[in-house]
Amino acid sequence: MADFWNYVESPLIDGLFWDVWYNDQAITSKEDRNILYENRMLGIPRMRQVKVRNNSCTVHDEFRRTFSTCYDYFSSASEDTEPFGLGTGTAWTYSSPEKLDTSSYWGWLGTYGGGGFYEDFSIHSKETLEKIKVLKENLWITRGTRAVFIDFTLYNANINLFCIIKLTVEFPPTGGATPSWDFLTLRLLSYQSKYDYFIFACEILFIFFIIFFTLEEVREIIHFKFRYIRSFWNVLDLIIITLSYACILFNIFQFVKLSDVLQGLLNQKTTFANFDHLGRLQVDYNNMEAIALFFAWVKIFKFISFNKTMSQLSNTLSRCAWDIAGFSIMFFIVFCAFAQLSYLLFGSQLERFSTFINAMFTLLRILLADFDYDAIERANRILGPLFFVTYIFFVFFILLNMFLAIINDTYSEVKSEISSRKDFEVSDFLWRGVTN
Amino acid sequence: MADFWNYVESPLIDGLFWDVWYNDQAITSKEDRNILYENRMLGIPRMRQVKVRNNSCTVHDEFRRTFSTCYDYFSSASEDTEPFGLGTGTAWTYSSPEKLDTSSYWGWLGTYGGGGFYEDFSIHSKETLEKIKVLKENLWITRGTRAVFIDFTLYNANINLFCIIKLTVEFPPTGGATPSWDFLTLRLLSYQSKYDYFIFACEILFIFFIIFFTLEEVREIIHFKFRYIRSFWNVLDLIIITLSYACILFNIFQFVKLSDVLQGLLNQKTTFANFDHLGRLQVDYNNMEAIALFFAWVKIFKFISFNKTMSQLSNTLSRCAWDIAGFSIMFFIVFCAFAQLSYLLFGSQLERFSTFINAMFTLLRILLADFDYDAIERANRILGPLFFVTYIFFVFFILLNMFLAIINDTYSEVKSEISSRKDFEVSDFLWRGVTN
Amino acid sequence: MADFWNYVESPLIDGLFWDVWYNDQAITSKEDRNILYENRMLGIPRMRQVKVRNNSCTVHDEFRRTFSTCYDYFSSASEDTEPFGLGTGTAWTYSSPEKLDTSSYWGWLGTYGGGGFYEDFSIHSKETLEKIKVLKENLWITRGTRAVFIDFTLYNANINLFCIIKLTVEFPPTGGATPSWDFLTLRLLSYQSKYDYFIFACEILFIFFIIFFTLEEVREIIHFKFRYIRSFWNVLDLIIITLSYACILFNIFQFVKLSDVLQGLLNQKTTFANFDHLGRLQVDYNNMEAIALFFAWVKIFKFISFNKTMSQLSNTLSRCAWDIAGFSIMFFIVFCAFAQLSYLLFGSQLERFSTFINAMFTLLRILLADFDYDAIERANRILGPLFFVTYIFFVFFILLNMFLAIINDTYSEVKSEISSRKDFEVSDFLWRGVTN
Amino acid sequence: MADFWNYVESPLIDGLFWDVWYNDQAITSKEDRNILYENRMLGIPRMRQVKVRNNSCTVHDEFRRTFSTCYDYFSSASEDTEPFGLGTGTAWTYSSPEKLDTSSYWGWLGTYGGGGFYEDFSIHSKETLEKIKVLKENLWITRGTRAVFIDFTLYNANINLFCIIKLTVEFPPTGGATPSWDFLTLRLLSYQSKYDYFIFACEILFIFFIIFFTLEEVREIIHFKFRYIRSFWNVLDLIIITLSYACILFNIFQFVKLSDVLQGLLNQKTTFANFDHLGRLQVDYNNMEAIALFFAWVKIFKFISFNKTMSQLSNTLSRCAWDIAGFSIMFFIVFCAFAQLSYLLFGSQLERFSTFINAMFTLLRILLADFDYDAIERANRILGPLFFVTYIFFVFFILLNMFLAIINDTYSEVKSEISSRKDFEVSDFLWRGVTN
Ligand SMILES: [Ca+2]
Repeated sequence: MADFWNYVESPLIDGLFWDVWYNDQAITSKEDRNILYENRMLGIPRMRQVKVRNNSCTVHDEFRRTFSTCYDYFSSASEDTEPFGLGTGTAWTYSSPEKLDTSSYWGWLGTYGGGGFYEDFSIHSKETLEKIKVLKENLWITRGTRAVFIDFTLYNANINLFCIIKLTVEFPPTGGATPSWDFLTLRLLSYQSKYDYFIFACEILFIFFIIFFTLEEVREIIHFKFRYIRSFWNVLDLIIITLSYACILFNIFQFVKLSDVLQGLLNQKTTFANFDHLGRLQVDYNNMEAIALFFAWVKIFKFISFNKTMSQLSNTLSRCAWDIAGFSIMFFIVFCAFAQLSYLLFGSQLERFSTFINAMFTLLRILLADFDYDAIERANRILGPLFFVTYIFFVFFILLNMFLAIINDTYSEVKSEISSRKDFEVSDFLWRGVTN
Repeated sequence: MADFWNYVESPLIDGLFWDVWYNDQAITSKEDRNILYENRMLGIPRMRQVKVRNNSCTVHDEFRRTFSTCYDYFSSASEDTEPFGLGTGTAWTYSSPEKLDTSSYWGWLGTYGGGGFYEDFSIHSKETLEKIKVLKENLWITRGTRAVFIDFTLYNANINLFCIIKLTVEFPPTGGATPSWDFLTLRLLSYQSKYDYFIFACEILFIFFIIFFTLEEVREIIHFKFRYIRSFWNVLDLIIITLSYACILFNIFQFVKLSDVLQGLLNQKTTFANFDHLGRLQVDYNNMEAIALFFAWVKIFKFISFNKTMSQLSNTLSRCAWDIAGFSIMFFIVFCAFAQLSYLLFGSQLERFSTFINAMFTLLRILLADFDYDAIERANRILGPLFFVTYIFFVFFILLNMFLAIINDTYSEVKSEISSRKDFEVSDFLWRGVTN
Repeated sequence: MADFWNYVESPLIDGLFWDVWYNDQAITSKEDRNILYENRMLGIPRMRQVKVRNNSCTVHDEFRRTFSTCYDYFSSASEDTEPFGLGTGTAWTYSSPEKLDTSSYWGWLGTYGGGGFYEDFSIHSKETLEKIKVLKENLWITRGTRAVFIDFTLYNANINLFCIIKLTVEFPPTGGATPSWDFLTLRLLSYQSKYDYFIFACEILFIFFIIFFTLEEVREIIHFKFRYIRSFWNVLDLIIITLSYACILFNIFQFVKLSDVLQGLLNQKTTFANFDHLGRLQVDYNNMEAIALFFAWVKIFKFISFNKTMSQLSNTLSRCAWDIAGFSIMFFIVFCAFAQLSYLLFGSQLERFSTFINAMFTLLRILLADFDYDAIERANRILGPLFFVTYIFFVFFILLNMFLAIINDTYSEVKSEISSRKDFEVSDFLWRGVTN
Repeated sequence: MADFWNYVESPLIDGLFWDVWYNDQAITSKEDRNILYENRMLGIPRMRQVKVRNNSCTVHDEFRRTFSTCYDYFSSASEDTEPFGLGTGTAWTYSSPEKLDTSSYWGWLGTYGGGGFYEDFSIHSKETLEKIKVLKENLWITRGTRAVFIDFTLYNANINLFCIIKLTVEFPPTGGATPSWDFLTLRLLSYQSKYDYFIFACEILFIFFIIFFTLEEVREIIHFKFRYIRSFWNVLDLIIITLSYACILFNIFQFVKLSDVLQGLLNQKTTFANFDHLGRLQVDYNNMEAIALFFAWVKIFKFISFNKTMSQLSNTLSRCAWDIAGFSIMFFIVFCAFAQLSYLLFGSQLERFSTFINAMFTLLRILLADFDYDAIERANRILGPLFFVTYIFFVFFILLNMFLAIINDTYSEVKSEISSRKDFEVSDFLWRGVTN
């Protein structure tokens, strides 16, 4: 925790407040608060912490005599909302998430609420340092502190991008500290250039196209009724349309929200600029858009089976789908068995095996030759190498090859069928020629 | 060795004794000996060394005139049990493993006995530093010292976990020092929460299930007699049952042992907390449990061959088992030949080829694309690259593909058999229809 | 930018001007300006910058009140050619690319023009430092500066090699700085040794051979007319001949150009040695030569199908070419779909996915087991692992195996055909024997 | 070069002369010159340099006015044997390789002769430092110096091992310095323990066995005459026997040589201990032994084809040998074409492609997923990625799969043949039963 205060006092403050130009002359206008010379800070940074109550966990009977305090992992049930320290000001009294208009944050060691004890920095580095000094000397970070967040937002006028930054330090109940960061770069405002009018025209076109496409599908649904849903391609169409509508709605909602935030910010420059919800919206929007586009790509396959070679290939893939699926289940069971084994053998020693899911990903990465054998050997000097050899032999040497065997066999089948059918067609053709 | 003392005097002592809170105020109650603010040390740390006698090895005749001393690798036969230095106190007189109740330790460079010369630290950093100074000035570490161990145990009340720590520095007879560490995290005490009652209920249920399962298998054994052992699934059942009983017994034994240790510790706080045996038990228990669960996973395959696809796949695997096994032997011989070659060529230069077993694992890792070609080239500039190309060509390009060829061929066979059998069944069915 | 000036003042100047020998005695002849003791600097280094105009981009309406300046990425349209600072001298007034005889440079963040504001260093370190000080104190690097180049050329007489060095620091409109370098090592002068006469003879021979080869192909073209172009081998011949002529021309042009530059340089030693065009020529020449040789290697295959095994193998490859090509298209579509997905999901977080092309290369490298899974997981904690597993399963486990299935099947076909043809030939032969 | 002298004066001297024990008390007996407390230095270290003459290369006409000196790469023809500097003593006058009894050394940048200018250190650190100071102040290292060697030998009595150490710094004519090292660990003396008598007995047994084996093969040669050499297994036997004899002879020769060196060393302790030839012998001996053992492993295959599975597998491998060989040639041609291309494209930028051989190994490592794509992209931003994709597609996706196709097809053939043959045998057997 001493390290944390050292970080806040020197590199953080120096990084946030660039007071001098490179020839050591102070930058003239105090209003120009730029980072890396080109990025303007919007509003002021905010430092917030969440705490848990003492006795939020129960100490075992045997140790109850020697341990009087116990601080659990963070959970909304065990959150500490009592004033502490100086007892006045936002830094020492609890503010609810609703008041702060902040959503909860999913950190590496837990999910933290949006409320807490916060202190807004000043726009001048000197005042900020004094505020921090007060916090430090009054033991703002206690043994119950579970996470400290530092939030601020930058805007680069040259390239018209916002950057929403959240620096997090998590203090787990095991002691120690885990720092992490979250940079979110957004184009929230559209340019006023010609190119933007072109983009705008495209967006309008897209909306019309989606509406037309929807009507088409509705007609198909009315016509085919339940049979409609049976076709893979129709389901795909439905998904794409749904995601497209969601994207459009998100876009509109975001535009409205942004106007609100910016209006507030431009009126009063020395408040904290809360881009929390906007950033969250944008991330969800991006993910949805990405998935919609991915499905649109998949749709290309509908139109691709035009010539013999292509249909032969896509036939192979669709025919062996069941065998592949069946084998995937078998593969998955063996994989789970090994994951379970590795999780129990190495989980307490190696971070990469620390949960069952982690162990599965680590084993998958071993198949792709991305592994640290030395760590496995160090974790368990007898069972480690034994596990490794067994896994490589059964999964890498044998099971992985089954995928290939299935595909290979199906391809041969499909090809011989097609060529025999072609022969048939040829003979059929000849027959017709004869009978004519 | 100067480095060792430097380490002990500064980072170790600072790390073990956290005297001040982050605002540089001394922590009030001296009783609160926490590390990383949250972890309580149980008892006091102990530093122990094992030595070998002078003349534990024989110097060659040619050099006998110039070399008067000779210290071998550690072995119980060559262990030095004579008092030395000041000659009094546990630090200078030998204590037997029985007296210390410590088992032997398998380090990286050898296996060290549980006895030796030890010094228990104090609970205050100042006293401890003085003790260390005495040891250092009286040359506690001699040329015969083969390993120094620092043992202590932490308890984190927040998450109810013990952490048994053993820091080791090995001094091989070649000179130099090899540090290593051993962290063992254990949940030895069960909570008093509701969740724990649920776990307890599950354990009781598990015991009843295992007993029922045992009776079932006993009945089968009586019925089938010797034929019982021939089935792979029955052998698997036996293994699972045996391992389960062992786990249950371990669990009970551990509970009893822990009560003893904790009782002693809570009564007298300034002694060394010997969790040596408990940790060892827990490790064995974990490994056994892991293997039992792995076999339980494998049992799923007994129930999986329900539909055509699945049985076709498991048929393929079981049928090519003999061919795979046969080829594995051939593969292993070629592999051994290359391992032998690489061991003799690079063993004296590269740590990864320093033993035959190491060389085998290194070659296996080359197949998985985890290798350091530059080191091989550096070790032998002509034969290194030659060896590498030969190995890659024969083993990676050719032999590894044989596994695939075997599986591929067997799969084709099984599939064509099944489809022909199906044809047969269909025709059989038709036949019956005709004859009826 | 302070970092940039620090770099220029100390490591750069120290590196460029080696004034003392290792026993701290000043090197006697001031004329001997060697780097690393052995490399002579030709002429003097030049430092040049390119700038963009203020208001080269438009600030959004909402922020127009607070942002008065806006500097875009570099483009020739937005380049600043106005004098600034002191307003006199080459460092403060614009020189056009034609005047500087410098071509534009393709940096990591954009393409920069060949003109700009430059300052030639002196041959003495002291004078140079003073020049730099003037630049620094008059704020030579402004917020509009987009790149600074430092150009110089070394010559090593021992091994007769030129080294053209361009150190670049790019200042993007986002703030920050991106350093890069460009070392080009050239053998521009041929030795006067015996070996060079041999090379010269080879070159003459090569020219005669190419002329003969050309005549041959011209004859073939006249004879076959349009059918000529249909053969793969003829097209290959044409490409090789064209590239060879281009190489010869380049070589001659370079020789003439070099004489000019060296003549100017030897007459006046304290000017900047402009090897810009020569280096550019040489790079193009090398690439052309490399490609010509590659095609020449491919031509070997024309002559290789001499025995049964070889023709069987090359038959297999040429026959499955269409299937491979067809499947490659399918593969490419799936690949693009995944690249699009990963680009949108991770593009704003990870540099490796920052463009669509980058995303494609990153996915290709995942197939080759060169990836950073942790970064993917950090970028998107839910969709990241999901994407990874989906990609590995569909592309690595399934699609990649299709290539193998196609080749495998074609090989079996070709082999059985050849052996049946052989049987036929044998029976044919027998038949002839019978009928005779 | 200043860096070189700094290294020699401080870390090297401190490392070679351990004067104090860890409690800062000087080690009593000055005779005990141990490194890392346990390793005795034999004799004294020697520092030797080799130089080339000025004007060992020719400067180009154009530059002859400005360059008066020219120092080539090292070759025995251009070696400088003139006295220089102080002109007296071994450090300033040339000693021939015969006088120094040192063989030439193959460094990273060339092969250096065994002669040169050398200075033997003293057994005391103070005297040594003075010697070095004299060398430095009189410019011992000149612009013609091409390599400096520091040779010494350690002996560890505890484990009876010699360690022959050669530290090398090469000064190429391009400027700069390339340090490298050579550690050779040898068991030159055999123990006087019981285990050694057992080893000795084994060696005697081995010699008798080899003699018996030789007689056997001689008999076979006499019997089969020229047909003998046609069998693969007989050739293997010959190779193994020849290598075995060579190993035995080496062993004897080494024993004699070692006695000489040690005798001289024990008589006079303050001379340089020349283990140069002994080390060289041992390396050759080890390599020969390794290869002999590798061939002995291969012999196991002679005896392995005992049951059906094994013979089926070895049949497959031996039958597809020709196809594999044929394809390997094709593969090699394509591989060479790509290696040539990459060598010319990236050779001047990337060390890994700096020679044709290096380029081949780098491409091989790309197939094994050990590559640095970023470096390739940096070296040539357009052709680099293009080359990479082309190479991966043609070689990794297509050609590599041909190996598998060949093996797969041959295995199917062999298996169906064997099973048909078995059917035949069965029917044959039935037939016999019928006719009986
Ligand atoms: Ca592979």
